[in-house]
Amino acid sequence: MTKKTQTTDGAAGRVTVLGLGDMGSAIARTFVEHGFDTTVWNRTASKSAPLVDAGATAAETAAEAVAASPLVVICLLDGTAVDEVLAAVEGAIAGKVLVNVTSGSPAQARACERWANERGAQYIDGKVMGDPPDVGKPHVMFPFSGSRAAYEAHEPVLKVLGGIAYHGEDAGAAAVEFMAQVAMGFELLIGFLHTLKLVRAEGVDVTEFTDRLAGTLTAYPPLLTSMAEAVKSGKYGPDLGSLDVQAALMDDLIGHRESLGVETVRMREVKRLMTRRIADGHGDQGFSSLFELLGK
Amino acid sequence: MTKKTQTTDGAAGRVTVLGLGDMGSAIARTFVEHGFDTTVWNRTASKSAPLVDAGATAAETAAEAVAASPLVVICLLDGTAVDEVLAAVEGAIAGKVLVNVTSGSPAQARACERWANERGAQYIDGKVMGDPPDVGKPHVMFPFSGSRAAYEAHEPVLKVLGGIAYHGEDAGAAAVEFMAQVAMGFELLIGFLHTLKLVRAEGVDVTEFTDRLAGTLTAYPPLLTSMAEAVKSGKYGPDLGSLDVQAALMDDLIGHRESLGVETVRMREVKRLMTRRIADGHGDQGFSSLFELLGK
Ligand SMILES: NC(=O)c1ccc[n+]([C@@H]2O[C@H](COP(=O)([O-])OP(=O)(O)OC[C@H]3O[C@@H](n4cnc5c(N)ncnc54)[C@H](OP(=O)(O)O)[C@@H]3O)[C@@H](O)[C@H]2O)c1
Ligand SMILES: NC(=O)c1ccc[n+]([C@@H]2O[C@H](COP(=O)([O-])OP(=O)(O)OC[C@H]3O[C@@H](n4cnc5c(N)ncnc54)[C@H](OP(=O)(O)O)[C@@H]3O)[C@@H](O)[C@H]2O)c1
Repeated sequence: MTKKTQTTDGAAGRVTVLGLGDMGSAIARTFVEHGFDTTVWNRTASKSAPLVDAGATAAETAAEAVAASPLVVICLLDGTAVDEVLAAVEGAIAGKVLVNVTSGSPAQARACERWANERGAQYIDGKVMGDPPDVGKPHVMFPFSGSRAAYEAHEPVLKVLGGIAYHGEDAGAAAVEFMAQVAMGFELLIGFLHTLKLVRAEGVDVTEFTDRLAGTLTAYPPLLTSMAEAVKSGKYGPDLGSLDVQAALMDDLIGHRESLGVETVRMREVKRLMTRRIADGHGDQGFSSLFELLGK
Repeated sequence: MTKKTQTTDGAAGRVTVLGLGDMGSAIARTFVEHGFDTTVWNRTASKSAPLVDAGATAAETAAEAVAASPLVVICLLDGTAVDEVLAAVEGAIAGKVLVNVTSGSPAQARACERWANERGAQYIDGKVMGDPPDVGKPHVMFPFSGSRAAYEAHEPVLKVLGGIAYHGEDAGAAAVEFMAQVAMGFELLIGFLHTLKLVRAEGVDVTEFTDRLAGTLTAYPPLLTSMAEAVKSGKYGPDLGSLDVQAALMDDLIGHRESLGVETVRMREVKRLMTRRIADGHGDQGFSSLFELLGK
């Protein structure tokens, strides 16, 4: 609580947090630790006890919690929960700034913004990319989007949460960033688990393999950068070698997986795309050129 | 060619390279630059000219090339090419050490080893993980496996090629490492291209997004390490948050992709696995626990 020295009476400002699950609790705690006069509410009231011990004030109802602060952060399980809680605070939100950091789609964010604006509230959408215990540290990323005026006015509050960034006035923009990053993470992680299945089936130690893999991962950021540049310009060099050379691998790679009972859905897709791209006369280009065939 | 000072007459040793495509040429050139008396052969003979200019000797036939050196490195397009060239050198290989760095499956490596051993040759399988221009630099990884005695005897030669590592006496082990690493790379890269499709469909700049993504990639090595430990021990903590919380995202994530015409095959799989794992009573565990359902 060293950071609380700034103020002992909440003079840093007033903020309300609706939702005290793992993430909402971490957010509320971070506000308390930074000296904000923090009002909290959770459907299951008992979850507010540790926050109250830390210095927050628990409100009886969500509407009371909203009434207590100009800035209201909402962190619930999903869009359904947000809809339910917003319906319950409808009468209290005029003049407030809502910051909804519940995970969800761009469409949900845009719908929330409309709902808030129609009721005289400003809306900022946010997403959390990181673990609850790390909230407050710069590597936990909080993309935000929506009302620029509200964001600029409340940036000093929001920035205590972690590495914040403003993605523009489209309320859906933070969710686009989140959906893209989460899906990329899931692609990597599910691919990784399938790879561990393969490695283990071959009798290789999974943690030793992972140490080596972790080493090679450092080569990817520059590769991704050059691939994104190729996608942007439409000029595809032979990144990772030409498709002609890489395609020659795919039957062996797929056959090897099948011999071990490891799934092949992505490798079949890669082979199919490579084959089509080569048939189109682009076998001298690299992996990035497969982009041209996606969604076709 | 500064490294050639070691010797000007090939006293570093004799080595033969069969196959002078992009990769074979880079390997042969590296040997020449390190002062090896390097004999080269390629099906299309004209490709040996730049190597001869650099100081290599071109052989008329593959069998002559094999006869010229105790150590014979084979770098061809694929297993079919290897089979063809090996058949042509059958009479010359007794007493040689064959190092086959052609990409291929563990089964192919094991078959090559049997073939070589039956003809009185020792066999080392190798795989190249990196780009031809980088051969000779430590970040180009060359996993090797097969005869330990041959590997140890020729390590001083092989290590000029890059970051070499010995994966054990099973000739297939280098190919296992290669297949696992390549597939992991393809998973990441095809997932990345699909993600760029999503990002672009939402009007976000693909290179700016990639800069941010490259930043978050640095968080993955420690995550992969802890996930591999969970897989090894069977003790699955809530990495990345609990499945209960993550599963709540999946419909939004899939619906968002569909609304943009972006494919969903992996995200549907992830959702299916999460749903099953939660139904099995493990909703408090994390992403790593999906491993338990793979191949089932
Ligand atoms: N945990 C992570 O690692 C992590 C990381 C990044 C982002 N996030 C996101 O942060 C958000 C919150 O996650 P969390 O980890 O805090 O989840 P959690 O621990 O499961 O908490 C869920 C919260 O939502 C509330 N809730 C659910 N349905 C509700 C309803 N119908 N009405 C009112 N309240 C409802 C719960 O209230 P009760 O206590 O009454 O059930 C609880 O406060 C999610 O969108 C999640 O995707 C989490
Ligand atoms: N290039 C890369 O970035 C890279 C990276 C890692 C690993 N590798 C691996 O390295 C190996 C070689 O790749 P590369 O880039 O050098 O490919 P490449 O430039 O296409 O060269 C292919 C080589 O194979 C020969 N070849 C093909 N079929 C043959 C046959 N039936 N009989 C005799 N020779 C035959 C070609 O001879 P001709 O000249 O007569 O056609 C040429 O020497 C592949 O297994 C590849 O997967 C390459």
